Amino acid sequence: MAPAESKTLTARPLTREAFAPFGDVLDIGGDPPKPMNGDRALRYHALAEAQVSGSDARVIVSIAVSKPVSGLVEIAMVERHPLGSQVFMPLDDGGLLVVVCPDEGGRPGRPEAFIAIWGQGVNYRANVWHGVLAPIERQQSYLIVDRDGPGVNLEEHVFEAPWFVRVS
Amino acid sequence: MAPAESKTLTARPLTREAFAPFGDVLDIGGDPPKPMNGDRALRYHALAEAQVSGSDARVIVSIAVSKPVSGLVEIAMVERHPLGSQVFMPLDDGGLLVVVCPDEGGRPGRPEAFIAIWGQGVNYRANVWHGVLAPIERQQSYLIVDRDGPGVNLEEHVFEAPWFVRVS
Repeated sequence: MAPAESKTLTARPLTREAFAPFGDVLDIGGDPPKPMNGDRALRYHALAEAQVSGSDARVIVSIAVSKPVSGLVEIAMVERHPLGSQVFMPLDDGGLLVVVCPDEGGRPGRPEAFIAIWGQGVNYRANVWHGVLAPIERQQSYLIVDRDGPGVNLEEHVFEAPWFVRVS
Repeated sequence: MAPAESKTLTARPLTREAFAPFGDVLDIGGDPPKPMNGDRALRYHALAEAQVSGSDARVIVSIAVSKPVSGLVEIAMVERHPLGSQVFMPLDDGGLLVVVCPDEGGRPGRPEAFIAIWGQGVNYRANVWHGVLAPIERQQSYLIVDRDGPGVNLEEHVFEAPWFVRVS
C-alpha cells in the first residue's frame, strides 16, 4: 500500500539557503576560495565549525561506511546530539539523502528531505534532529567530525507513524 | 642534472606504525569498527583528535583543491603549526605524497616521505614539520580539519638545499 500523501516528503537539492536552519553545507559552491601553499592550492575556508560542549569534550575524526537506501525510503526515527555538531562528508561517489526536522517544543516537527550530490557534505548543528546515514543506491563512506566525551549526547525520537521519501 | 643521492628521499607506503611519530593515519585499516545506526553502518571511531590551543581558538572544517605533482618532486620547504593539528582527507581518487620531518632543536631534520593511497588521509599533530599538499599526477580535493583563531600558527623553513623524491 502506498503511504498516505500527508506522510510523504519531497526531497530537494541541498543548498546553503535551504539548509541554513539546520547547519552548514560543505562544498565549493559558497564564498570564493583563498590561495594556499603559494598558488598551488585553493582553500574554501571555514565551511563549518566543530562545536562541542561539556567537560572533557574533544573533537574527533572518524570514518563510517553505510549501507544504501533505495526506492521509497521509510523515515521511522530521527536523532539529535545536544552536546555537539556533526560533520558527514562523503568520501566516494553517489548521492546522500539528508533528513532533518525543525524542533517543536523538544520534539521533531515535519521532516525536510534534501539530496546531497557528490562533492557535498553536511554539518548538523548541535541539537538538530536528523535521520541516519542514507546513501542512495550504493554504499558510501564518510569522514565524520564530531564529539567524544562523557555525558549523554544522544536523543532519539521514533515517529508515531513513519514518514516516506522516494529517492529512486 | 640529477640531484645528489644524499638529498634524495625514498617514499614509503603510509602506515600507522611508520607515521606514528608525526600523527594519525585516517583509513579503515586499524581497529575494528563499531556498529552505528543499528546495523546499517560501521564506524571506525576516533581515528584522530583535532587539538587546538590558544584563546578563542576553534576547530573548523574546510575544503582545499590542490594542483598535482609528478616525476621528481622538489621539496624546497616545510611548515608547521604550533597551535593546532591538521587533518587532510582526500575526497577523490589518486595518491598523495606526504612529507614530514622530525624536529631537531627547532629545525626540521631529514624528511621522510610517504605515499597515501585512495582511502587514506593524515592528521599532522601540532608542531609537526610537513610539506605542502602534493597529490600525485592529478588534482585532488581534501577535507581539512584544523584551527582558526588569533595568534601566529605558521612557521616555515626553507631548506638550504632542496630535497627530492620521485613519485612517478
